[in-house]
Amino acid sequence: VAELEDVTSAVVIADASVAALYGKRATDSLSAAGMAASLIDFPAGEEHKTLRTVHAVFDRLFAVRPQADRRTVIAALGGGVAGDLAGFVAATALRGLRWVQCPTTVLADVDASVGGKTGVDHEAGKNLIGAFHQPAGVLMDVETLATLPEEHFRNGLAECVKHAVIRDASLLDFIEDHAGRILAREADILTDFLARNVAIKAAVVSADEREAGERAHLNYGHTIGHAIETHVGYAHIRHGEAVSLGMTAANHLAVERGLLESEAADRIEDLLKRLGLPVRREGLDAEKIWQIMQHDKKAVGGQVRMVLPVMIGQVAVFDDITPAAVRGAVAALSL
Amino acid sequence: VAELEDVTSAVVIADASVAALYGKRATDSLSAAGMAASLIDFPAGEEHKTLRTVHAVFDRLFAVRPQADRRTVIAALGGGVAGDLAGFVAATALRGLRWVQCPTTVLADVDASVGGKTGVDHEAGKNLIGAFHQPAGVLMDVETLATLPEEHFRNGLAECVKHAVIRDASLLDFIEDHAGRILAREADILTDFLARNVAIKAAVVSADEREAGERAHLNYGHTIGHAIETHVGYAHIRHGEAVSLGMTAANHLAVERGLLESEAADRIEDLLKRLGLPVRREGLDAEKIWQIMQHDKKAVGGQVRMVLPVMIGQVAVFDDITPAAVRGAVAALSL
Repeated sequence: VAELEDVTSAVVIADASVAALYGKRATDSLSAAGMAASLIDFPAGEEHKTLRTVHAVFDRLFAVRPQADRRTVIAALGGGVAGDLAGFVAATALRGLRWVQCPTTVLADVDASVGGKTGVDHEAGKNLIGAFHQPAGVLMDVETLATLPEEHFRNGLAECVKHAVIRDASLLDFIEDHAGRILAREADILTDFLARNVAIKAAVVSADEREAGERAHLNYGHTIGHAIETHVGYAHIRHGEAVSLGMTAANHLAVERGLLESEAADRIEDLLKRLGLPVRREGLDAEKIWQIMQHDKKAVGGQVRMVLPVMIGQVAVFDDITPAAVRGAVAALSL
Repeated sequence: VAELEDVTSAVVIADASVAALYGKRATDSLSAAGMAASLIDFPAGEEHKTLRTVHAVFDRLFAVRPQADRRTVIAALGGGVAGDLAGFVAATALRGLRWVQCPTTVLADVDASVGGKTGVDHEAGKNLIGAFHQPAGVLMDVETLATLPEEHFRNGLAECVKHAVIRDASLLDFIEDHAGRILAREADILTDFLARNVAIKAAVVSADEREAGERAHLNYGHTIGHAIETHVGYAHIRHGEAVSLGMTAANHLAVERGLLESEAADRIEDLLKRLGLPVRREGLDAEKIWQIMQHDKKAVGGQVRMVLPVMIGQVAVFDDITPAAVRGAVAALSL
């Protein structure tokens, strides 16, 4: 990447699990490229994607020798949490250092690596503290997916189904046709599959750099999904699981409104199940979920906005979501 | 301000002292303008310009009712600390809220209110954590200067002398001619005086939005000044006092190098003294100050860069600053 030519030092930021697996390989290759390389790890898990962890990373970043300066680059090595957290550190260290995303999960490959969103969670909700900070580059290595735990691998597939539903019916066919090979992590099918997903994400994001219009479509499955994550606690549900539930609930709501044929909703639900993603969950409190949705940072003036599918491959944004409709959709998740 | 037309709620952020003096007036006038207005205060003093305070402000911001959303505006009411800290909160809350600067000190009027720099300190140095985030507007009220404690008022004058030295010899004449009326805080002279200073700051900043070139001139007096602040502790010296010492040290260094005539250095020193600003300080450890300078975020690859005057009204940037030169300049501060 041309804009990284003057880099003299690199700081790799990864959670403790990824640091143990790939930390040395990353710093060794950076050293071999002539940079002073350091590694900072932080506790693994979305529950550590907080301002407290950012503070701890800053303490270590400012103690690195040679000292970090404006020619230092941050490498975010790992999944979505590492990208969000290390990206936010890069956005705010010395008022902005350049950074490179090195995703090691499906979710980070297809989702977090595009768009420049960085940030951390707050008790009041997900990603409430953050900044837009585009990475100078993304280094994707399909090989790192081989060691990804099964549940993390499946977790990332939820965003892939999302991409198909919001933009590309033929991608849904592709996933249905190749679900077995994808789940077996065959390298050639994964390369094609991830590339198709990154292309959709990048097209949506570049059409709309500041999220005023089209980019909102990426929130399909995320409005109720985020609320479920906040409700049950980030430590107790994976992001992809919450999105899978959020898409199922959104589909239910869309069918109830007469927007979407129930056959399409069933087809998406069947595919999510084949991919090992949840479409039902006990113990969800619809009233609490509604309250959390009203506090979502995408809510404007307390009004809830949702992205609903009108057919596979096409969605629209609705501002007139009622508490009753959300209650019905959440109730359907425990049927 | 046109870009603020859709604002529905405003959150005023101020330190406890300013909140007690002007907090109610600010929220009353925002309420009268039809906005839901809230007030968040934080402990006064540069020593509280930390990530910890930011965290506490976020806790309260996300508890405000009606809930903060993207149509919420942040008002930073107070001096430079309030601007830096509340501006950083605005830069990172919901990945960026609009904000308005409401400076209540000379320093904030002429310095912090222009440029879009926001941020907080870290144990390792000043402003190490931050972001560029331009305010939507600046509301300057000379009346608020009436209640400013004497030492804070004088504190702000250091940046005004800086502006004169880096850009405008006639401004130095103006300050010399009107020092008495300025110190007496005569409203008409203050209005002229502050406007001249804001114009210089704005011209330098707009010539150079990302600090690559000209903007560096604003660091005159700040390289050694910041190091002194870190060395003696933010709680034990005011920013303007540190800048006054930093300018005096830089002038000494410039005279030693044969860049600046000693008469010019003496003239600046005399004016600083008339304005009640320090030009000598006991107990400074030159070696520690040099080490801190090497860690300054403006240092590149550990190399120290300083802005030195070549005459009153003109400065240049030097990259070849030696430890011996800094030692000599710091030693001169205790002569």
